[in-house]
This record gives sequence, structure tokens and C-alpha cells, in this order.
Amino acid sequence: MTAAYDWLAVDWGTTRVRVWAMAEGDGVLDTRDAAFGMAELAGADAFATAFASLADAWTPARRPAPVVVCGMAGAREGWHPAAYAPHDTNLGELPRATVRVPATGPDYDVRILPGLRQGTPPDVMRGEETKLLGLVAERPDITGIVVLPGTHTKWVRLERGRVAGFLTAMTGDVFAAVAEHTVLRHTLADGEPDAADFAAAVAEARAAPAALLRRAFGLRAEALLNGLAPDLARARLSGWLTGLEVMDALAQLEQPKRVTVVGDDAHVERYAAALAVFAVGAERRAVDDLTRAGLALAHRRLFEGNG
Amino acid sequence: MTAAYDWLAVDWGTTRVRVWAMAEGDGVLDTRDAAFGMAELAGADAFATAFASLADAWTPARRPAPVVVCGMAGAREGWHPAAYAPHDTNLGELPRATVRVPATGPDYDVRILPGLRQGTPPDVMRGEETKLLGLVAERPDITGIVVLPGTHTKWVRLERGRVAGFLTAMTGDVFAAVAEHTVLRHTLADGEPDAADFAAAVAEARAAPAALLRRAFGLRAEALLNGLAPDLARARLSGWLTGLEVMDALAQLEQPKRVTVVGDDAHVERYAAALAVFAVGAERRAVDDLTRAGLALAHRRLFEGNG
Repeated sequence: MTAAYDWLAVDWGTTRVRVWAMAEGDGVLDTRDAAFGMAELAGADAFATAFASLADAWTPARRPAPVVVCGMAGAREGWHPAAYAPHDTNLGELPRATVRVPATGPDYDVRILPGLRQGTPPDVMRGEETKLLGLVAERPDITGIVVLPGTHTKWVRLERGRVAGFLTAMTGDVFAAVAEHTVLRHTLADGEPDAADFAAAVAEARAAPAALLRRAFGLRAEALLNGLAPDLARARLSGWLTGLEVMDALAQLEQPKRVTVVGDDAHVERYAAALAVFAVGAERRAVDDLTRAGLALAHRRLFEGNG
Repeated sequence: MTAAYDWLAVDWGTTRVRVWAMAEGDGVLDTRDAAFGMAELAGADAFATAFASLADAWTPARRPAPVVVCGMAGAREGWHPAAYAPHDTNLGELPRATVRVPATGPDYDVRILPGLRQGTPPDVMRGEETKLLGLVAERPDITGIVVLPGTHTKWVRLERGRVAGFLTAMTGDVFAAVAEHTVLRHTLADGEPDAADFAAAVAEARAAPAALLRRAFGLRAEALLNGLAPDLARARLSGWLTGLEVMDALAQLEQPKRVTVVGDDAHVERYAAALAVFAVGAERRAVDDLTRAGLALAHRRLFEGNG
């Protein structure tokens, strides 16, 4: 990258950080990412050093360079705590609750967006609010159901630009634990499941959700006795867990006809396929685009006084 | 122990081995156990050495001393492979399928009982068949439903001394993986759950089995926002998983009115409480007693030519 950047957009997740060097407005000049997650970093200095190791490669248009961050960097154990905002805050107002990281030196002016908290039932999100802000940047009065698949998948009811309520299912987290730390650890392949196998398993979960723990051991027994293929075993476990999640979430959200799915390509396709089993339509949206759009909106409000 | 023993009874599980020094017949002279599981031992020599480190402490009435073993010692990666018998073998005939471990030297004559395999649906057990044999030793024509809780819980339909069919739920395995390897690892206490909290969670699972993955994350959120007690969090996760298992198993087994629960005290009480939520009665049986009774029956048939 040769051009000087105007500002930096940062998405700091539980296991990865991604930094975009931005031109004035929304244009992307360059991007870098690294496996600096919460688990690897202890304390503000570690976050600042990890961030600089990515950002120092680029030339800013001015110093201090504006930096807008969302995600786990704002957790208590993160870079600097950014307290949760009430879940029903108008998302367009979220940048007002942004926290400035103190003592980051003369090079960077770092602002972290807050997460959202819900009292009843208790729930929290951190990072997803900025992707939702990306949707609000397009349509300030947006109303509808959004799912953001991940380690802890969020299902959100948006009403006129606010989060009316949300729920979390720890599907990805449980899948990884079962795949890596149970008797199934030698039974499952890596990689993306076949779409038809996955959809069939979602339908099985719908038909008998309580069968999960029996069906899961069945993968081991079928591998042992009949040589079940490891990629089919993975597709089934993934489909059974996702089917449970989608069945429950749709019931909680009063059976919407259509859901906006925000994720990377693999997650988006998988959740669209699972929703189709329940005859629910999916609007597919790329998560990185929305993250940048949300950070760009925050950048405009924080550093340019408009938006 | 001063008296010389007549024979040794051995229960070799996935994580522990237990050896009983037996008087003539069923009387126990002494017992020892150790954490020599499948994971720690590689190859027949390692099993033989581990066994001798426990058994050599005692004095046999004669050499070679008769030794009867059940469990994972008969797995392919165990002491010596004891092939699975068909699931519907008359359990009283199982000792005929026992395998003699070759080259164990002049001190021990070691016989390993086979596990059981079921073709449709595919399933296997290894160790539990000997506890069932303990029930058959009491009542050769026993008919009824038996549950053997553990890492991989077995639900068995006995018909006149045979296993008519069985299923496995990997409830304990999944509980441990979720408790130790997900975001819940700092949220759950150790120890036995409170009985009332556990039963309430079983009832919740029954009311909405698909809610598991949402409820599980709710433990984390409630701990973060409202200081949920770690022992209550553990009771709930345990109850939700066990409730799923019991709901499914009872449906598969056509809703029995009464189930024999075979386990250690903690497992027996927990499964009896879960069954009570479904209005199913429990007959409680101590697993060690039945294991020894099954091994003693095998010992009589193998070494005394009667039974």
C-alpha cells in the first residue's frame, strides 16, 4: 500500500483481530489480520503492542491517526473497558458511548465501541452491535430478524433501528468442544460439511431434538462398526446442533418468514440452508462489509462530527 | 490382607481399573484401584505391568491365579482383543466367548469378557455387559429396562436374560467437554448438583429440549450480569443434558413405568431424580456389586465348570 490512510477500522474478536486501512470515507486501502485473540493477550500493553505490530506497517495521513475498534478489545479483560450500553439504545447513538483508550502515545487516537446488555433474560453481545450498526447505516429505521452466526450465535429482533431483544446460542463453542474433546475426536473430519448431508441432519434435529446425545454417540458406533465417513459424521453433528439452535430461535422469535444472515460465506450458506429446512427465507449479507460500514458510521460521528 | 485369595475380579474402565481379591465364591477379601485407563497405557505389556503393580501385593492360593476381567482391557487398543459378541447372546453364555490373554507368565491366568455389538442401529458396549450379567446371575430370566449411567450411558432392554436392544447417550462426555472447554469453563462449580435444582432443569429440558444451546449461554450471561452461583449453573447444565437424554431414551424404549438404575451412588440418585420428573420409577442398584456378581458367574463357568 502506498497511499497514506485516513483512519483505521478494527474488529477485535475472541480469537482474531482484523485491521483495515481506510481512505477518506468507506474505501479500503489495505487489510491485515492476525490470531491475536483474548486468550493470547494479557493487559492493555499487550493489546497496544499487538495492534501496533499490524498498524505500524502503514503510513497515516496525520498523527494521531483515528482508530475505531469494536469487539472484545472493550471487554473487562481487553484493551480498555467499554461498558455495555442498554440493548434498546438507538444503534445510531452508539458512537456517543464510545470509550477513548488513554495513554496510547502520539501515533493513534483509539476509540472502542461498547457492547449491548439485556436484562431479561440476561444476555450480552460485543462486536455484533457494530455489524447491526452497519445495517442501520443503510436503513436507519430497519425492522426485522437478524442472525449473526459464530462461536456464540446472536439472533436479534431489530425494531426501527433499535435492538428490541436478542438471544445467544453457543452452538459453535459446543460443536468445537464436542469435536475436539470427546470420544468423537477421531470420528469427525475437518472442513465444511456437504450441504445436503447438513440439511438432512437439520431436519432430523427438528423431528426429534432430544435425540442429540444418542445420535452423537451413534457417529462413533457407526464409524467403529460400519466405517462411517468422517466428513459425513461432521456434517451430521453440525446439522443436529444447528437444527436445535434454529428450531429454538425461530420459536422464540415467533416464527419469522425471513431472516437476514450476517456472516462469512461458509456461515451464511450453512444458516441459509438450515433456515430453508424450516421454510424461512434468508437475506445473505457479508459480515466484513457490515463491520466496516458500522465502524465508518462511528468514525464519521466521532471524528468528523457528522454522519 | 493376610488370607490367600482364590481369584481376582477386575473392572478395567476408560480411566480407572479396580481389582478385587476374592475368597472362594463371591466374598471380597480386599480391593485396590488406580487411574490406569486406556489413555495412559499403550500395548499389552503396559497393561500386564499395570495389573501386576496392583495384584502382586496379594498372595494367591495357587499359581497361576485365576483372573477374570471386563471392560476396556478387551478393546483393540487394550490388553488383548476380546471381540464383541452379538447383542442378543444369552448373557449366561457370555463366559464362553471369554478370551485368554497369552503369555502372562506363570503367576496369572487372565480371561477377558467380550463386549456386545448391535447392528441396527449400530452400537457397542464394553464392561456394561458384565454388570448386566450380574443381574442375570440373580434372575436368569430377567426382563425389563436397565440404565447404566456414565461417560457413555447405556439404556438396555433385557428380555428373558438377553439384551433385546440398547442405546447409548454420550451425556457425561458432552457435559465434561462443555464444562471444561467452552466459555462456561469459569462459570460452573465442581461437585454434585443440588437435587432440587437438578430436577427443575430436567423439567425445563422436557418442556423445551431444543433450547439447550441458548440456555447454556444464558448461564454465562447470568453469571456475568447477575452473579449466578457456580453450583446452580452446574446443576442446570447437568439437568438440561440429562433431561434431554432421559426424554429421548424413554421415548425410544416405549415409555417404561420402571427402570433399574445401575451406578455409583451419585449417578444412581441423579438418574432416579431425572426419571421421577417423567413419572418413571427407579430400582437402585450399586454397580460394583453387580460387576463382581457378573465376574463371579464368569469365574465359576470358566474355572470351576459350573455356575
